[in-house]
Amino acid sequence: MAATERLVIIGGDAAGMSAASQARRMKGPDELEIVAFERGHFSSFSACGIPYWVSGDVGERDELIARTPQEHRKRAIDLRMRTEVTEIDVTGSRVHTRDVETGADSWTGYDKLVIATGARPIRPPLPGIDAPGVHGVQTLDDGQALLDTLARTEGRRAVVIGAGYIGVEMAEALLKHGYEVTIVNRSEQPMATLDPDMGRLVHEALSSMGITTVSGTAVTGIATGDDGRVRAVTTDDAEYPADVVVLGIGVEPETTLARAAGLPLGRHGGLLTDLAMRVRGHGNIWAGGDCVEVLDLVSGRERHIALGTHANKHGQIIGANAGGGYGTFPGVVGTAVSKVCELEIARTGLREKDARAVGLRYVTATIESTSRAGYFPGAAPMTVKMLAERRTGRLLGVQIVGREGAGKRVDIAAVALTAGMTVEQMTALDLGYAPPFSPVWDPVLVAARKATAAVRKAGM
Amino acid sequence: MAATERLVIIGGDAAGMSAASQARRMKGPDELEIVAFERGHFSSFSACGIPYWVSGDVGERDELIARTPQEHRKRAIDLRMRTEVTEIDVTGSRVHTRDVETGADSWTGYDKLVIATGARPIRPPLPGIDAPGVHGVQTLDDGQALLDTLARTEGRRAVVIGAGYIGVEMAEALLKHGYEVTIVNRSEQPMATLDPDMGRLVHEALSSMGITTVSGTAVTGIATGDDGRVRAVTTDDAEYPADVVVLGIGVEPETTLARAAGLPLGRHGGLLTDLAMRVRGHGNIWAGGDCVEVLDLVSGRERHIALGTHANKHGQIIGANAGGGYGTFPGVVGTAVSKVCELEIARTGLREKDARAVGLRYVTATIESTSRAGYFPGAAPMTVKMLAERRTGRLLGVQIVGREGAGKRVDIAAVALTAGMTVEQMTALDLGYAPPFSPVWDPVLVAARKATAAVRKAGM
Repeated sequence: MAATERLVIIGGDAAGMSAASQARRMKGPDELEIVAFERGHFSSFSACGIPYWVSGDVGERDELIARTPQEHRKRAIDLRMRTEVTEIDVTGSRVHTRDVETGADSWTGYDKLVIATGARPIRPPLPGIDAPGVHGVQTLDDGQALLDTLARTEGRRAVVIGAGYIGVEMAEALLKHGYEVTIVNRSEQPMATLDPDMGRLVHEALSSMGITTVSGTAVTGIATGDDGRVRAVTTDDAEYPADVVVLGIGVEPETTLARAAGLPLGRHGGLLTDLAMRVRGHGNIWAGGDCVEVLDLVSGRERHIALGTHANKHGQIIGANAGGGYGTFPGVVGTAVSKVCELEIARTGLREKDARAVGLRYVTATIESTSRAGYFPGAAPMTVKMLAERRTGRLLGVQIVGREGAGKRVDIAAVALTAGMTVEQMTALDLGYAPPFSPVWDPVLVAARKATAAVRKAGM
Repeated sequence: MAATERLVIIGGDAAGMSAASQARRMKGPDELEIVAFERGHFSSFSACGIPYWVSGDVGERDELIARTPQEHRKRAIDLRMRTEVTEIDVTGSRVHTRDVETGADSWTGYDKLVIATGARPIRPPLPGIDAPGVHGVQTLDDGQALLDTLARTEGRRAVVIGAGYIGVEMAEALLKHGYEVTIVNRSEQPMATLDPDMGRLVHEALSSMGITTVSGTAVTGIATGDDGRVRAVTTDDAEYPADVVVLGIGVEPETTLARAAGLPLGRHGGLLTDLAMRVRGHGNIWAGGDCVEVLDLVSGRERHIALGTHANKHGQIIGANAGGGYGTFPGVVGTAVSKVCELEIARTGLREKDARAVGLRYVTATIESTSRAGYFPGAAPMTVKMLAERRTGRLLGVQIVGREGAGKRVDIAAVALTAGMTVEQMTALDLGYAPPFSPVWDPVLVAARKATAAVRKAGM
């Protein structure tokens, strides 16, 4: 009988548990022992779903849990909850753990290791940031704490710090709870993942929903009242009264353990892996999910993107490889979609500043069209911006702001970017057409035509 | 001053008038005279929109008209309505026309010619097919005639002959008018543009909407009453009572003129062109829209596909070339989407029988998923079927049947087909993910994963 190998996984969320599940599909418990450590209360939950749970669109917290610890254990995955890994001993091939509740600690050896420690919310060291009434929304516990605060807060003024995906989604959630919402945002426009000209459209749409966005403004502190609770968010030249504050500033890779173990980190602080998701220089250690950097196929640079869909893919690849199979994660093109009330926001590829940063010269084209044939009921306006490389005409990026039917159109561009298509090639794409789905020229095709003309006009 | 050339266009609908408009953008009236002949009452209308006008979703006929004759004339396009071209004299570079109302006829010489004669509905030579109450839905006049019939018919039983896109869309339109609708269909299942296993899902969905579909059944005749009006649709073994009958059997290229002129036709009866949309062997004659055959990039064969989106692209390419510029139409992958009530139906690439017909060996994978994260309100079921070539794993086709958010997902596959991707490459696609838009694994990715496994299992 073959010796049983032990696969140890640090982190019981999307990447870690996808890796565990896939490895288990490849090898049975007699060949591969799988032990996973999770310091929190939940496994395999959808962090992306938290804003919708807070808003009330999703009724119950547990709906966000894809698979409970019990379900994992039934599949012969030894998932140990509330157990924190405190050290990785690479030389000794073992990890040190501590039971969060009892404090009991021990070492566990591994043949293969998966690091899936995720990301942590950025919490700027502002005065008052730990005051009651100030909430992050990274974990299910965070979500519950915010819901508890919303239930007992009488005032109806909310300030969201940060106008990225989480920020705008939380603004909608607070709006649905009847709050008067102000977003304070450091960038020139909300949704800094878009170019400012497209971000301005988001600003206008938020405004029409009754959400105030204050851009180009850094928060300097959080003022508290006599009761110690949050009272206002302060900036250099103003104070925004707040009964509740939500931090939507973003996240950074949680790589404290990896750093201490001397594993290779990139310039965003994420672990660096090869295409098989193995930590560079380490044949038996893999890493995936929000704690790694990924290759951006358009810019050729590493980026940090915390997104459940990538984490799941990473986990699946890691599980295949750790289970003795083969798989690679070639990289990303930077696709993201978001929804705020009826507004749909999408992007893929490079923004103008990303293109400049890597030395690409480009042209842009921006068009307005509709989601359906103009005469069809429900046809909604949509703005599409396209970037193409000068001379070659290669597609570099697409940004879309619109209503129903706008967001997922970005997938057309995501596939075209992956395939290295030119905008002129895109003008001939055979996209689905019928009046309830698209004008006779899909908005993406209209943008591709205009971008093609811009490439030609810019010449050599 | 340069001599003025004359561009003559036969057909004032999508392909012809797009060609005219694009040529006009390239060259002014001092360089290029543009004369277009249209035998009907309308120019540049959306035939695809007729079912939605009949259903009442689109309120006014004129909303389907993208550009009126007056608008074309304002842009120096000499559009002559109700003028039928009766002969193309290729040797003499001239066309013979007849005024439909006065009968006056004349010859018009051309330097360049565009044939955009469209398609004609297939009208099988059935007894009774010309009886009052039997309607095609190809032109705006057809649509108006049908609406007139619906307004004055007291009975509420309708039979639609044919269960393709037009057939099922018309079934919905009649349902909205309060009819009891039966579709009689020659194929094994409705939507023969899908494989039968996917067509069965359409059958079930139609049935749940209250539409009866009788498949595998040829219509043998249309029975009329004492008043000469339609009374029933008859088949070999049954009679389906009908107060109104709609023909949704499909169309064939209208190439009577081209055939008489000795121009090259393909096996579907459509004109054959080169990649610049020039009629093969004729340097100064172009053809586009529903009267041509197009190259299917997946099978390598010519097909006939009557679809406004292709017609517009053809027109744009023809106009660029006839106007002294350059453009090509590389071909299609066979993408189509349709909607019946809440049901969305989409396809691209090859069906199983198409693959077999061109000698491709393939594997299939069919999966069920949802349009949004499973926990998100409005998440609707969706079935995706994927075909991949054996051994190479190259994507061959995708079919989708679902609800809101299902149809346009086919665009992901349409781009991947165009790029020649394998299903394994598709598993890594960076598609837009957020809970209101997609599960963490987009249904297309789930299908690609299953197809990848099937390719591997099938081996060499």
